[in-house]
Amino acid sequence: MSHPQTTFRQTTFTAPSLLRTRRATVSRTTVHAQLSQLRANGQYDCFKLGWHPIYDDRSRWPAPLHLFWDSDVAKWIEGACYFLVEEYDVEVDAAVRELVAMIRGAQHEDGYLNVHFSVVEPGKRWTNIRDMHEMYNAGHLIEAALAHRQYYRNDLLMEPLAKYISHIHRRFGPGEGQIRAYPGHPEIELALLRCHAATGNTEAYDLARFFLEERGNPTGQEGRHYYDWEMERRDEPRWKRPNSWPMDRSYWYCQAHVPILEQESVEGHAVRAMYLLTAAADLLNTSRKSSGSAAPARPLTAAPAWLAALRRLWSSTVDKKMYLTGGVGAVAQWEGFGIDYFLPQGPDEGGCYAETCASVGVMMLAERLLHADGPEPNGRYADVMELCLYNNVMTAMSADGKAFTYENQLASCEAARSEREDWFVCACCPPNVTRLFGSLGGYLWDYGGGSGEGEEGGTGAAFVNVHLYSSAEVKFPVDGAEVTFSQKSNWPWEGNILFQLKGAGSLSATIRLRIPAWAIQHGHVLTPTPPTGTATLEKGGYLRLDPSYTASNPVFSLDIGGAGFAPRYIAPHPYTNQRTLSLARGPIVYCVEDADHPWEENHFKDVGIKRGTAVEEEWRVDEKSGEGYFALKTTGWERSPEVLARGEDGVERELVFVPFYFRSNRGGKGQMRVGLRDDGR
Amino acid sequence: MSHPQTTFRQTTFTAPSLLRTRRATVSRTTVHAQLSQLRANGQYDCFKLGWHPIYDDRSRWPAPLHLFWDSDVAKWIEGACYFLVEEYDVEVDAAVRELVAMIRGAQHEDGYLNVHFSVVEPGKRWTNIRDMHEMYNAGHLIEAALAHRQYYRNDLLMEPLAKYISHIHRRFGPGEGQIRAYPGHPEIELALLRCHAATGNTEAYDLARFFLEERGNPTGQEGRHYYDWEMERRDEPRWKRPNSWPMDRSYWYCQAHVPILEQESVEGHAVRAMYLLTAAADLLNTSRKSSGSAAPARPLTAAPAWLAALRRLWSSTVDKKMYLTGGVGAVAQWEGFGIDYFLPQGPDEGGCYAETCASVGVMMLAERLLHADGPEPNGRYADVMELCLYNNVMTAMSADGKAFTYENQLASCEAARSEREDWFVCACCPPNVTRLFGSLGGYLWDYGGGSGEGEEGGTGAAFVNVHLYSSAEVKFPVDGAEVTFSQKSNWPWEGNILFQLKGAGSLSATIRLRIPAWAIQHGHVLTPTPPTGTATLEKGGYLRLDPSYTASNPVFSLDIGGAGFAPRYIAPHPYTNQRTLSLARGPIVYCVEDADHPWEENHFKDVGIKRGTAVEEEWRVDEKSGEGYFALKTTGWERSPEVLARGEDGVERELVFVPFYFRSNRGGKGQMRVGLRDDGR
Repeated sequence: MSHPQTTFRQTTFTAPSLLRTRRATVSRTTVHAQLSQLRANGQYDCFKLGWHPIYDDRSRWPAPLHLFWDSDVAKWIEGACYFLVEEYDVEVDAAVRELVAMIRGAQHEDGYLNVHFSVVEPGKRWTNIRDMHEMYNAGHLIEAALAHRQYYRNDLLMEPLAKYISHIHRRFGPGEGQIRAYPGHPEIELALLRCHAATGNTEAYDLARFFLEERGNPTGQEGRHYYDWEMERRDEPRWKRPNSWPMDRSYWYCQAHVPILEQESVEGHAVRAMYLLTAAADLLNTSRKSSGSAAPARPLTAAPAWLAALRRLWSSTVDKKMYLTGGVGAVAQWEGFGIDYFLPQGPDEGGCYAETCASVGVMMLAERLLHADGPEPNGRYADVMELCLYNNVMTAMSADGKAFTYENQLASCEAARSEREDWFVCACCPPNVTRLFGSLGGYLWDYGGGSGEGEEGGTGAAFVNVHLYSSAEVKFPVDGAEVTFSQKSNWPWEGNILFQLKGAGSLSATIRLRIPAWAIQHGHVLTPTPPTGTATLEKGGYLRLDPSYTASNPVFSLDIGGAGFAPRYIAPHPYTNQRTLSLARGPIVYCVEDADHPWEENHFKDVGIKRGTAVEEEWRVDEKSGEGYFALKTTGWERSPEVLARGEDGVERELVFVPFYFRSNRGGKGQMRVGLRDDGR
Repeated sequence: MSHPQTTFRQTTFTAPSLLRTRRATVSRTTVHAQLSQLRANGQYDCFKLGWHPIYDDRSRWPAPLHLFWDSDVAKWIEGACYFLVEEYDVEVDAAVRELVAMIRGAQHEDGYLNVHFSVVEPGKRWTNIRDMHEMYNAGHLIEAALAHRQYYRNDLLMEPLAKYISHIHRRFGPGEGQIRAYPGHPEIELALLRCHAATGNTEAYDLARFFLEERGNPTGQEGRHYYDWEMERRDEPRWKRPNSWPMDRSYWYCQAHVPILEQESVEGHAVRAMYLLTAAADLLNTSRKSSGSAAPARPLTAAPAWLAALRRLWSSTVDKKMYLTGGVGAVAQWEGFGIDYFLPQGPDEGGCYAETCASVGVMMLAERLLHADGPEPNGRYADVMELCLYNNVMTAMSADGKAFTYENQLASCEAARSEREDWFVCACCPPNVTRLFGSLGGYLWDYGGGSGEGEEGGTGAAFVNVHLYSSAEVKFPVDGAEVTFSQKSNWPWEGNILFQLKGAGSLSATIRLRIPAWAIQHGHVLTPTPPTGTATLEKGGYLRLDPSYTASNPVFSLDIGGAGFAPRYIAPHPYTNQRTLSLARGPIVYCVEDADHPWEENHFKDVGIKRGTAVEEEWRVDEKSGEGYFALKTTGWERSPEVLARGEDGVERELVFVPFYFRSNRGGKGQMRVGLRDDGR
């Protein structure tokens, strides 16, 4: 079993593209900028276990401001190690080495490793697993250790983490004398399963599986829900609760209201939900594929139920609770999901959170489900993965790589302008963008083959499933021989992709090329033209090229451009009651900004467009960043509520749309909107 | 100063009308049904101060289930006394007498009077004024005492309440050694000001004024917000909070986040807000008019600021936070207001509470503001008062007077069908409907005159401002002579109203007739035709008839029917993002119900209508209740999300609309909707 965080090293981005530009920016700017933030704000030194003035702050409960510092450091190490692979940097290397030394030095004799409970509340370890993020921090440290081990080829960081895993494994589990707890913020589960896949650590597997199977058990701990039991031991009244909980016992906030297999809809904190489901998919995938270095796992007899739950909760997420930018989470209070189809565009319209990390989580989940859901990949997963990448995730970082968002509302308002920040007190999102871009190569495609490599293997047989297009090359071995597969395109702006396959002469390769759902109705052209029966559009939306085709045509191209890349009007589901229209082109969702419309004073609340109005494309190169993009132009109408009430026409306005990911890079007043009033046809 | 609860006795409903039908039902059925509920559920006997099994229930915090029982009894007494005026009933009379005796027996030596703190937590009086409803219960008891005193012409109930007022007045206030508290649930303020107006009790005035002026003071109690101070004395952690509070220190829930005069928008629990503002308007009115029996009050030097706050918060309520049925409160958690323009139609679309009591509160506030806002009444207040009455309030009771609602969502869903209940654990709404219908005559009109009676008085001069139309007669004295003014109409179905004025020959009467905003553009006809200058449409939307007209025409009629009563399409404000259309006719807002559309399975979520489609009227007489109403018929289109996405036409449907107030009287599956998808023109 492979994870993108492992496989990305086999992929090289080969030619200028939006993705390559962003990766270079993250590598050269963001990694350094984030390191400076860690140094300036205290995180960098936190594993020295000295006192920091912020530890005196008691304004937030239950999680004090510094509670996630361990993970801030860990995520930076992880991202840094991904980029060191690509481009060595002496400052980054030195910082990683120093941080690792500090982490090693912070570990207790018994393996415990956590800043807050070493320095601030040393007597209270494991007394509030619901809120205190010990396991969340541990999970990110494990992920850092995996990335570190992969780049440095030593166990300087993995060693203390393996010890910490043993510590946790001794304390928590279903056995006699163990505590049946599971973390309030899932994260460690996916880290443990990656650790198991990469190192064969069976304690990691057992622990992750326990956490996943135990979660939401109403009678797990002495006949009680674990969180009830734990709260009582802390002598906390039931109605004392975090501000993120609207009601007492809002265990759905952390997906612990019922066991995962019984959850009918995705609920609560969106990042937690996505991390948890990613781990659940990992658990399922581990059970279904042999995984190289990992020791064989106990059979997962409930695998069909896990698959059904994952499909159900995926559908709940993307069909009923996702913005058309790939954002999830409408409700700020619990940073998560509202009821079905509740997707207002901004805080002044009822809510919109669309946290950056949550869409990174959707991408991880989608990538896992591409492997979990049967031999023919389902293009819906990859469509959503791409939607998130180019929109809700990419909008979270400025073009210069120095400013970030946490929330990504689809419409600004006076209280929430469209802008980015250098850093956040809770700094999860910026390093998550770093980690994602670092491992991005692992998301482009799946591949494999050779003897004993599953359904599409066999001697000399190989497969590549291409999920995302760009300009990139992947190298992988098939029965000892190297296969090289490359793609070249001007994606996301044009849909013509040139592929080249190189391998042993006897290679029998099946290639699958995703046809995005937004393009599928417009057809596609494969060149050279495939003989009948050698290229099949599968039900999942992938064009399968049989070995007979790839053997005769090592170089071929796919064109899903033309009408597929024409600007198109898109609208949310009618049950959202969001009667809005937006523009999209290829995978890019657009917005309007006041930078192009100096007359705008009301966040485009009064501007409507009509479906079918002609849209003009204009290739623009941004002066400041040098980045190119297609802008879209059409005509709209500005009509105030009073003008609408009188049924009048209002003011005709020439509108310029720019990619949502590019918003807030050009100054202005921070006024922006994705969905404009739908004025019909 | 007069209140509708006092003046209603001067008005008689004279001919069959919807209002008279409802009042008769309440008098003959509801008052008895509610008495039975009080007897069956324990409230009736609670002032005996024995133990009731419900007192053992600890499932709810801070307010246990029985906390409002005092007020349940009080509201019933109040409503019963209003109807006894109209129609003597031996059982009701006996129950009132027995209850009064029990209440008298429950009073402590020192004047304290509360069931919970006498029986369940005797040591905890006044320790949680934020949550424990002692003053709320006291307020309703005061209102009961006022109604009782008015009907029985004795002080058997007023005596203990006056003593209780003294008790509270001693304990709370701005003086040395006093506590600067104010109730979490406003209600006592309006009760105290009515008590002052009716009895001249200056302690009542001082106390109400203190509560209103002190509320939200950030440094009132020992330099702290009173609720912070009180919470600390209870040794409660800041994050322990009622389930109705989304966050810690959600003092806006009870309008105590800032002083009333500084509140920019209406926030929090809607009933609390409306009761509070009603009291604020009473305070203002008390300061501006001489008030017969009441002793002169201290001058309210901040009167202009109170008026400005009232206007501002009224506008916030009705312009930005009111449903087109007159319902207020979109959010169930705090039974109150969401952000501006956040008005989903039902709980499955993001929320809709629209509590019955809240709209009763809007009516009270509107009635007060009709007197507060200058000599020319502003028809907007009366328009909203009528909107609430015929829609959100009247829909709260079944035609048979036996079943009630608490929430009045505009669209049903599976989890919240359109139906009514016999009773509620928190039984505020049913008796509030009783109280309102009991005192309804007081809402129809203002009148007065004679020597020394304010701006439009003077010897032999009288005025009547007619706010609501029906068939009714009012008698009032002008300089010792009785004036009789009557109206006769088939309102709310037809807009022709016949008026008759009788009085001394020398009577000089100014009559103002409200032209509703929905009719004003269609014109109106006064018969006999007024000579130029004798009938003026004032800026506030009232047609003012000068004494010269009324002197020559003691019988005259107003016709605002015809086009004014044609069915019309109405829609919520565009910023609500509710792109829906509804039908209205006169003051009545309509809905569709599955009873008329047996094919409906999805709560009309998929049905759209087009503005401008012809609407047919049909007079129907309901078989079961014998009630007549105009049904409206038009054509709509049922289009599922899939059909909409494909841009197809869907299924044409003949739609029948019935008054929203009449919903859920004819069986069916409980599927109902007021706003249908707006399919344009």
